[in-house]
This record gives sequence, C-alpha cells and structure tokens, in this order.
Amino acid sequence: MTAKPSLRHRVYRELFASAREDGKLTLTNKVIVVMILASVALAIIGTERQLAVDNRTVLRWAEFGFGVAFLIEYLARFWSAAEKPGDGSATQKRLGWAFSFFALVDLAVVVASLIPMLVTGAPIFRLIRLFRLASLLRFGEFSNALRALSTAIVERRYDLAVTGALAGVLVLVGATALYWAEGAQQPEAFGSIPRAMWWSIITLTTVGYGDVSPVTTLGKCLAAIVALGGIGLVAMPTGIVAAAFSDAMQNHREAKAKAAAQTAKENA
Amino acid sequence: MTAKPSLRHRVYRELFASAREDGKLTLTNKVIVVMILASVALAIIGTERQLAVDNRTVLRWAEFGFGVAFLIEYLARFWSAAEKPGDGSATQKRLGWAFSFFALVDLAVVVASLIPMLVTGAPIFRLIRLFRLASLLRFGEFSNALRALSTAIVERRYDLAVTGALAGVLVLVGATALYWAEGAQQPEAFGSIPRAMWWSIITLTTVGYGDVSPVTTLGKCLAAIVALGGIGLVAMPTGIVAAAFSDAMQNHREAKAKAAAQTAKENA
Amino acid sequence: MTAKPSLRHRVYRELFASAREDGKLTLTNKVIVVMILASVALAIIGTERQLAVDNRTVLRWAEFGFGVAFLIEYLARFWSAAEKPGDGSATQKRLGWAFSFFALVDLAVVVASLIPMLVTGAPIFRLIRLFRLASLLRFGEFSNALRALSTAIVERRYDLAVTGALAGVLVLVGATALYWAEGAQQPEAFGSIPRAMWWSIITLTTVGYGDVSPVTTLGKCLAAIVALGGIGLVAMPTGIVAAAFSDAMQNHREAKAKAAAQTAKENA
Amino acid sequence: MTAKPSLRHRVYRELFASAREDGKLTLTNKVIVVMILASVALAIIGTERQLAVDNRTVLRWAEFGFGVAFLIEYLARFWSAAEKPGDGSATQKRLGWAFSFFALVDLAVVVASLIPMLVTGAPIFRLIRLFRLASLLRFGEFSNALRALSTAIVERRYDLAVTGALAGVLVLVGATALYWAEGAQQPEAFGSIPRAMWWSIITLTTVGYGDVSPVTTLGKCLAAIVALGGIGLVAMPTGIVAAAFSDAMQNHREAKAKAAAQTAKENA
Repeated sequence: MTAKPSLRHRVYRELFASAREDGKLTLTNKVIVVMILASVALAIIGTERQLAVDNRTVLRWAEFGFGVAFLIEYLARFWSAAEKPGDGSATQKRLGWAFSFFALVDLAVVVASLIPMLVTGAPIFRLIRLFRLASLLRFGEFSNALRALSTAIVERRYDLAVTGALAGVLVLVGATALYWAEGAQQPEAFGSIPRAMWWSIITLTTVGYGDVSPVTTLGKCLAAIVALGGIGLVAMPTGIVAAAFSDAMQNHREAKAKAAAQTAKENA
Repeated sequence: MTAKPSLRHRVYRELFASAREDGKLTLTNKVIVVMILASVALAIIGTERQLAVDNRTVLRWAEFGFGVAFLIEYLARFWSAAEKPGDGSATQKRLGWAFSFFALVDLAVVVASLIPMLVTGAPIFRLIRLFRLASLLRFGEFSNALRALSTAIVERRYDLAVTGALAGVLVLVGATALYWAEGAQQPEAFGSIPRAMWWSIITLTTVGYGDVSPVTTLGKCLAAIVALGGIGLVAMPTGIVAAAFSDAMQNHREAKAKAAAQTAKENA
Repeated sequence: MTAKPSLRHRVYRELFASAREDGKLTLTNKVIVVMILASVALAIIGTERQLAVDNRTVLRWAEFGFGVAFLIEYLARFWSAAEKPGDGSATQKRLGWAFSFFALVDLAVVVASLIPMLVTGAPIFRLIRLFRLASLLRFGEFSNALRALSTAIVERRYDLAVTGALAGVLVLVGATALYWAEGAQQPEAFGSIPRAMWWSIITLTTVGYGDVSPVTTLGKCLAAIVALGGIGLVAMPTGIVAAAFSDAMQNHREAKAKAAAQTAKENA
Repeated sequence: MTAKPSLRHRVYRELFASAREDGKLTLTNKVIVVMILASVALAIIGTERQLAVDNRTVLRWAEFGFGVAFLIEYLARFWSAAEKPGDGSATQKRLGWAFSFFALVDLAVVVASLIPMLVTGAPIFRLIRLFRLASLLRFGEFSNALRALSTAIVERRYDLAVTGALAGVLVLVGATALYWAEGAQQPEAFGSIPRAMWWSIITLTTVGYGDVSPVTTLGKCLAAIVALGGIGLVAMPTGIVAAAFSDAMQNHREAKAKAAAQTAKENA
C-alpha cells in the first residue's frame, strides 16, 4: 500500500524531467519551454529601438511578468529539490541543486528579467534564456538525438580535422593568389592576405556578397579556378557533420524500431 | 451479359480519375491539366502591366474561353457525380460532391475566370487554379510519389525538429554577433537583432545579395566564422527532406520492380 | 596465312574508332581531339574583339591551318569509309557515311574553318566543333559512363518530374509572394510575376546577385521564409541527376571489377 | 643486454617520425608543428602594411627567433641523420638527407626567416613554411587519411573526367548564350565569350557577386535556365571528391575497428 505522494514530491516530479523514468517533459515543462521561447522573442524584438520606445510600458510589464513567473518556478524548484533521491539533508540537496550550472543559469535569467534597470542597453544578456531551453531539452527524444549526434561527430574527428585543414589551406591559397594578383589594383580589398581572406571565405562558401571581387583579367582567372576547385571542399566539414547526424538518427530510429519489435514479441 | 454503360456513366469514368481501378489519368483529364497550366501561364503573364494593356482584348477573351471550358467541365462533373457508387439519391451524391473541397476550388476557378470584373486588380486570385492541378494529380504515379514522400517526412520529424532548431539557433547567434559588432556602424542594417537576422538568413543560406554586409574588421571576422560554421547546417532540414524523398522513391521503385517480377512469375 | 592489310584498311582502322574491337581511341583520334579542343579555344578567344583585331593575321592563318587539317581528315574518312563491313559498293558505303549526322557535322566544321569570309561575325558557329568531340567520345570508357548516366536518368524520370514540379511551384510561390509584397515599392523588379520570377530563381538557386532584393520589412520576411524553405529543394532535380550518375558509375566500376575477376579466374 | 642508446640516436628518434615504428609524432615534432603554424600566421599578418610598419621591430625579432629555432632544428636533423639505418658512412647519410626534397624545403625556410633583407616585399615566400607542415604530417593518422583519399580519387578518375567535361561544357554553353544575348548591351561584361565565362563560372558555382548580371529579358530568361539547369552539376566534380573522401574514411575506420577486434581476440 503506497502512501499518497506529498505535494512537494508531486511538484518535484512535475518540474524535474530527470525525476521521471521515461524522461519525458511534463505539461509544466512544456509551458515553461513556450514561455522561454516567448521571452526570447520579446528580447529579440525589443532590440528594435523604435518599437522598444513606442511600446516601452508593454515591454517592461511583459519582462516583469516573465521575471515573476521564472522566479516562482525557481523557488518551486529550490523547494522541491529536497525530494531528490540520495543521502543528505534537504538543505544540502537544495544547495547542491542551487549551485549546479543550470540552476545558476535559471537564477541569472530571473535576475535579468526582474531588474531591467540593471541590463538596460544590454538586451543580448537576455538571450541567455536560450540556455534554459538547453536545460529542459536535455531530456526526451531530443536528448537521444543530441547524444547520437555528438557520438557520431567524435567518431569522425579525423575526417573533420583533415577536411578542416584542407578547407583552411584552400582559403589561404585563394587569398594569397588574389593578394598577389590584385593587391596593387585594389589595396582596400586585397592589400594584405588577411584582407584577401575575407574575399576568399565569402567566395568559397558561395555566399558572394559582391562587396569585393577581382577586376583584372588575371584576378578573374585565378578567382574562377579557386571557385571551381574550392566549391564543395570548403563545405566538406559541415557536410561531414550533416552526414554524421543523418546516420546517427537513422541508427537511432532502427534501434528504436527493433526495441519496439522485441517488446511486442515478449508481450505476445 | 453486361448492359452498355450509359453516357452519364462513361462521362463519369472519363472525368473522375478515382472512378477507374488503375487510377490513371484519362485523355480528358490530361487535356484539362494542359488547360490549367495554360491558364496559369496566362494569369502570370497578365500581371505584366504593359503586356496586359496592349493585349487587353486577347487576354480577356482567353480568360473568358478558359472560364467557359471550366464551367462546362464543372457542370459535366456535377451531372455525372450521380454515378458515384454507394447509397443515396442522385441529388444527394451531386450535393455531396459539390460541397467537397476540390469541387469548391473548381467553382471558385470558374467564377474567377468568368467574372473578370470581380477580380480586376487581383490576378493572384487566378493562381488558385494551381490547386485544381493538385486535385487531378492526386492520382496515378504522382500520388504514389507524394504519399511516399509524406510518409518519409513524418518518419523523420525528429530529425527535422532538431536540425530546424539548430538552424534557428545558428541564425540567431549569427544575427546577435553582427548586431553586437556592427550595430553602431550600420544602424540601418544591423541596428537590431531582427534587422541582423535578414543578413544572417541571407548569408547562411549562401544567397548573399550583398545589400548588407559587415564593414568592420571585427564584423568581418565574426561573419567569416558564422559563414564557415553555418554553411550546410542551415541547409540540413531541406537536405533531410531531399534525402527522405530520394529514399522513398528508391523504395517505391524497388517495390514496384518486385511486384512486377511476382506478377511475371505467377503468369509463367 | 593472312594477307597484309591494305593502306586503305589501315587508315580506316586508324580513323574510325567503331572499326576496332575494343572501341578505344587511336593515336590519330587523340591528336584530332586535341586539335578540336585547340580550335574551340581559338574560336572562344577570337570573340574578344581587341585580341582578334591585334592578331588578325595569326588567327586567320590558324583558322586556315585547322581548316586544312580537318579537310584532310574528312577526305581520308570519305576515302576509307569504303572499308566499312557489310554489303554494297565502295561508293554506296562512302555516301552512306557522308550523309550520316556526324559526317555532316564534320563537313560543316571544315566549311566554317576554310571560308572565314562566310562566317565573319558569327564566331558562335565555330563552336559546332564541340559536336565533333561528341562524335569521337562516343567510344571507349566515356561512352560507358554516358550510357550508364542516361539509363539512370531514364529510370528516375518520375523523381525528376515530381521534384521539378515542386521546384517550379516553389519558384512561382516565391515570385507571387514578393510580387504581392513589393510590387508597389519596386515596380521595376517586382512589378509583375514574371519579373519577380527572376528574383525568385536567382534566390532559390542561392546565386543571389543582389541586383534585385526586397527592401520592405514584409518583403524581407517573406524572402527569408522562401530562402530557408526553398534552399535544397530547388537543387533537388540536379541532385537526383548527380546521384543517378554517381550510382551508375559505381555499378559500372563494380561490374568491370567483377568481369576482370571472372577473366582472371578463367585464365587461371 | 641492450646498450643505452646514444644521445644522437635519441635525437634522431625524436626528430624523425619515420624512425619510430608507430609513425606517431613526438613532443618535439608537435612543438615544431605549432611553431610553423605560428610563423605562418605571423607571415600572413605581416602582409597588412600598417600593422607591419607599426610593429616593425617586434615582427623582425619574431622572424629572427623563428629563423634561429628552425636553424637549430635543421642542424640537429643534419647531425642525427647519420643514425639512419642502412649502409653508408655518416657523411653519405647526411648528404642523402640534405638533398632530399623536404630537407631542401627546410633549408629554404631557414634562409627565408634569417635573411629578411633578402625577401623584403615578398612575404608570400614565407608561406613555403606550410610545405614543412606537409613533411611532418605525412605520418600518423593524417597520412592514412590522405592515402585513402588519393586512392579513392584515382579510382574515380573517369567520374571526375566525365563530370569535369560536363561542367566545362555547361560553363561554355552558358557563356555563349549570354554572349549572344547581351554582348551588344553590356560589351564590358558579355562582349566576348571569355568575358561571359567569368559571369558563367560565378553564376554556376552559385557565388553570384552581382558585378555582372543580365539586364535584358532574353538575357534573364537564358540566365535563369542556365542557373536552374547547372546548379549542382558544376559542383559534381568536387562532390565526387567529397564522396570519395567520405567513403575512404569510412572504410579506414571499419578496417581499423576490425584490426582492433582481431588483436583483442588474439590476446584473449
């Protein structure tokens, strides 16, 4: 006969995804995710000066509202952290939680939202709320995807190193070629290798703003060779990351399907 | 002894691809597809003001011609919808068809083509004809391809969510970096995070119009890092859709080849 | 006791790759390939007016030299075509060859090179020499690669149709969105859907010249959505061709390796 | 009873990665790699005129310091080269090493660093230090990756030739089309095929600077067709290299895992 769980225990299970066996997000967690996203969107929009001035009162109250909500959540977490399994008094467990990385991020978020005076002119600071998302999305389906991804990247670290080095050499060779060919004609754009590297990177990534481009025949010939030769090779490191991610997700899906089939078989 | 099918039944089978076992498009269906494409092309060209003014009479008569043709098709469908299998009187079946989504689209197309007065200045409205295409291309080889594609996308929804979130964070980080680095120098382009996001998206998709680009050394360094790091990662979600589609088509081809081999074996 | 082959037969085997069992290019064939490439390069460079004027005599003599060489080759082919296996008199065989597609191309090339008066101001005409390359590269390793490629493309015709249609719809939707959003502000660039399609295609292929780009907030938002959503999807048709080619070459390599292993086994 | 190795032998093993069984880089090797990278970075930064003038003394001393360090390394290598296994006197072995390609590169690097007077105004010369990296990175994990890569590229030489030729033809066709369509309107940009090829290459690689772009309706239509058709196909050669590399690394990883499993089995 199990006793009815205390309020504190229920709050604990509701707030801490790590407390639940399946690691899934609770409704409260999801509400908080939405609130974080909304407050980040608010912080982004708030950097647009004219909008911020026109809606000063609304923005300030919204910031204050988010701050209060985050404060309540922080206090509830602090209070219910005592339910954490393991040895130690309630205070020890609470302090252990309060000094963990993600709890400190939570605290910073609360402070940043509640004392707008403090952070006036520094709206970027409000973007640390995104880290709060990370603390919540560590669980559930997302965490599997992220773990699979990081494993796959570690496995391919040599591929990344070799292709990264190759990309770096290509960028340097392209920059040196144009520095040599157009350094005299366009000193502002190609007057030194670091300057030419701006052209080289923007060309080899195929962004091609057009703020700097060769004007001499020799420069255009070299640029054409660099562009034809370098396309795709500079994209290789990120291509490897993309492939690693794709494979990892595929394996994860297959493993999950297999496990489900196994479970179905055992139940039958 | 099967009776000779009535005219209404033959019209029904000619107009409704769903009435046929193989789901293939009939000659009439194909003629209508071509007419829709032609009328869409006409609507597109008609937005070019000078052309539209110079050929006002031709365009109006062409619109009218398409309108009449679509009206005849609509009435023929309405009349022959009574042949639909299942219970209910002819009128019930006709009304059931007339209030279906695609029948309403057909009606809107007819109205839009026949009453040009009504839609003057709103040529975009004529593009709803494209939806008519969708109603016809639901059948045949296309529908298998589309079904395979949507299945594959649903299966990879977590991949899409994770890579989409990653792309979003990259766009935001890039925008924030440039807002911080160049917000003061180029307030028009980087004076707020939403403004900087325009730069960030156009850079990370490698479009690179060049209408906004960093001018300071710090801004260029950050932009180079963002470009090198973000290329390919922002393209991951659409890359996943492309891969899902490619795999789905491959599986579909293999399944079809297998089925054909099976049929050949049974016949032998 | 085999008779020594006649000069005509040796010339025939030297000029016609199809006459040889292995289908490989002879030394003469390779020399002609190089000459064609050189004469194409000359024709390309000759379009640069200043260069063409300064080196009028040199260019004219080079053109004349290539013309004579191609004429000699043409006559040698005509003469030795009589050696072709099969029934018919020597004249019949020669005429049969002379009216084949590639022989007519050869003739046109000779004429174009020898009568520069005729083609003055039409240097593009000289590029038909490239077709001559096609007539030579039909054989050997290249022809296998090209056959494998065309087979693979035919097999994936539905993939290409569906993705091509998807790309077309994306281009049209993007153009319509920007026509609607910026048609009034920038009538020159977005004043009609066909005009907006230029922007749409240059954006979705990620070329991004920057000659036209949205200036309003609404236009930028729509353009960002179009760019993020469309990247990769518009590249899908060519991506499918690339994948088809890659697979075809892989299969071809494996088949060749297998055949080589089989031969080695039989010889052992 | 093995004798304690001589100092010369220990220096030899420390400097020459080829002297060690595992082919791994020693601590000394790694320090030299870092020094080369630092001196290359210095050479790159030194091309920025203003910086170079302001820090003339610092740069000169840094160059001198790197020069002395590379000289000491060179002399230590020369001295310990006598330990090389095989027949011949110590002097013969030393001279044999001194005239090897990489030793000559080392010597050139030392000279270039120590006699700045000699190379004033030619900072590019200092980039030959990068070749020194190649001499060190021939060993260890990198060398396997590079060997696998070069093997894979050789295997796919026909793919590269065919796709390269296809890309070349696309570039030429695009250039010819725009030369024909816009040669009269924009003689500076499209007045000859070589000029139009600059546009063609920058468009088909999707760089799209925007310094030249079609302005007529015909030119835009042709450019749109070229862009839609050519995207991805021009990237095919580098895509093949990327795929070859990816496969080679995958095979290498699998072979290594297999070898490790084999070793573990034998030890068990």
